[in-house]
Amino acid sequence: MTNQLQEGEKIAIIGGTGNLGPGLALRWALAGFEIYLGSRSQEKAMSVAQEINEELGSALVKGMQNAKALSLANICVLTVNQSAHSSALEGLKEHLSGKILVDATARLSFPDLTPPGPPSSARTAQNILGESVRVVAAFQNVAASALRKNPRESLDSDALICADDFSAAELIMQLARAAGMRAYYVGDLDKAITVEGITSLLVAMNKYYKVNDGSLRLSGFPKQ
Amino acid sequence: MTNQLQEGEKIAIIGGTGNLGPGLALRWALAGFEIYLGSRSQEKAMSVAQEINEELGSALVKGMQNAKALSLANICVLTVNQSAHSSALEGLKEHLSGKILVDATARLSFPDLTPPGPPSSARTAQNILGESVRVVAAFQNVAASALRKNPRESLDSDALICADDFSAAELIMQLARAAGMRAYYVGDLDKAITVEGITSLLVAMNKYYKVNDGSLRLSGFPKQ
Repeated sequence: MTNQLQEGEKIAIIGGTGNLGPGLALRWALAGFEIYLGSRSQEKAMSVAQEINEELGSALVKGMQNAKALSLANICVLTVNQSAHSSALEGLKEHLSGKILVDATARLSFPDLTPPGPPSSARTAQNILGESVRVVAAFQNVAASALRKNPRESLDSDALICADDFSAAELIMQLARAAGMRAYYVGDLDKAITVEGITSLLVAMNKYYKVNDGSLRLSGFPKQ
Repeated sequence: MTNQLQEGEKIAIIGGTGNLGPGLALRWALAGFEIYLGSRSQEKAMSVAQEINEELGSALVKGMQNAKALSLANICVLTVNQSAHSSALEGLKEHLSGKILVDATARLSFPDLTPPGPPSSARTAQNILGESVRVVAAFQNVAASALRKNPRESLDSDALICADDFSAAELIMQLARAAGMRAYYVGDLDKAITVEGITSLLVAMNKYYKVNDGSLRLSGFPKQ
């Protein structure tokens, strides 16, 4: 893989019929990427893909089973429920060698929303997958509702990108920008514990302030 | 104490001659509060206080030893070096009963800047001080340089306020606003572990992006 996303880059979204997957699929398809929307159920994946394609007026999103989706793409974005994180990775591990796995998992502990302790989900993913897979932590903080509301507009939410491998982080920063976010490189996967924790804070604050899509921006860094 | 800061409210800054203390003292004195700037060395405290008063053209900042400073105020802001956190609290504990202790500590681990693990510094402070002191976590993320640069202007940095006691958090939100920040209530002291971690991220990103005062803003919450 080069350090630039290719035109029509193929992206698999594992657990793509959940909360976050459809909004990311929508925005990336709008940017011209080909999306393999994965689910444990092929039927559900096809139905959600069809919904998104109708909204787009194109057929860039294809629904299929998770294993099939990731066999077709070099970049795989994991948006499964937190309880399925480890088992999904164990099950898909053999198909991920040589690829980039983007982990969007932010563990939430209800009802108190105390931030999760280390290791970060993405570090756990890297430990499960081993060195042949480059893990990137991203998109843990973005509000699913904000992704879908005005998909052609920029988001008021920044993407904080963590990876041990900087060239993988660079690709995913491009992917974040293609989805309408500003994207910043934060550091290695251990730093993602704080990015994950920010989701707990935002969910708690959304509840307290009675809003739906509180989000985080950075300032003082170079314009992009 | 009422839930409103009083005109001329007295505020002690413990370890006030360090990195963060002088900038906070400057902005709070500009807002009309009386500041007791504490240090282990009375001489150093008086010299820094004089410097700030010259910049202000007033005499609202008074330098003195830490224990004396906190005996004069109901709100005490702790800005000591992270290595002195527990020992400072143990030493000052007897003078803090019935007061609010604002903990601005963000532990940093050099050179890798991996975020610190729980408990948060503020939770540790609450454990040391016991129930007679209301601990609030605040100001861990603000860049010292930004506080001092244009002290009459608003900061491009939001204050995330954590406290088990909401009425104490309310007072410190007013204090943050008086210093030119927007202030948001996040939740209890355990959530401060993520706010503390954000400082590690910002310091790492400042280095990577070659800036001095990268900071965090929130969006999507009610205007203030």
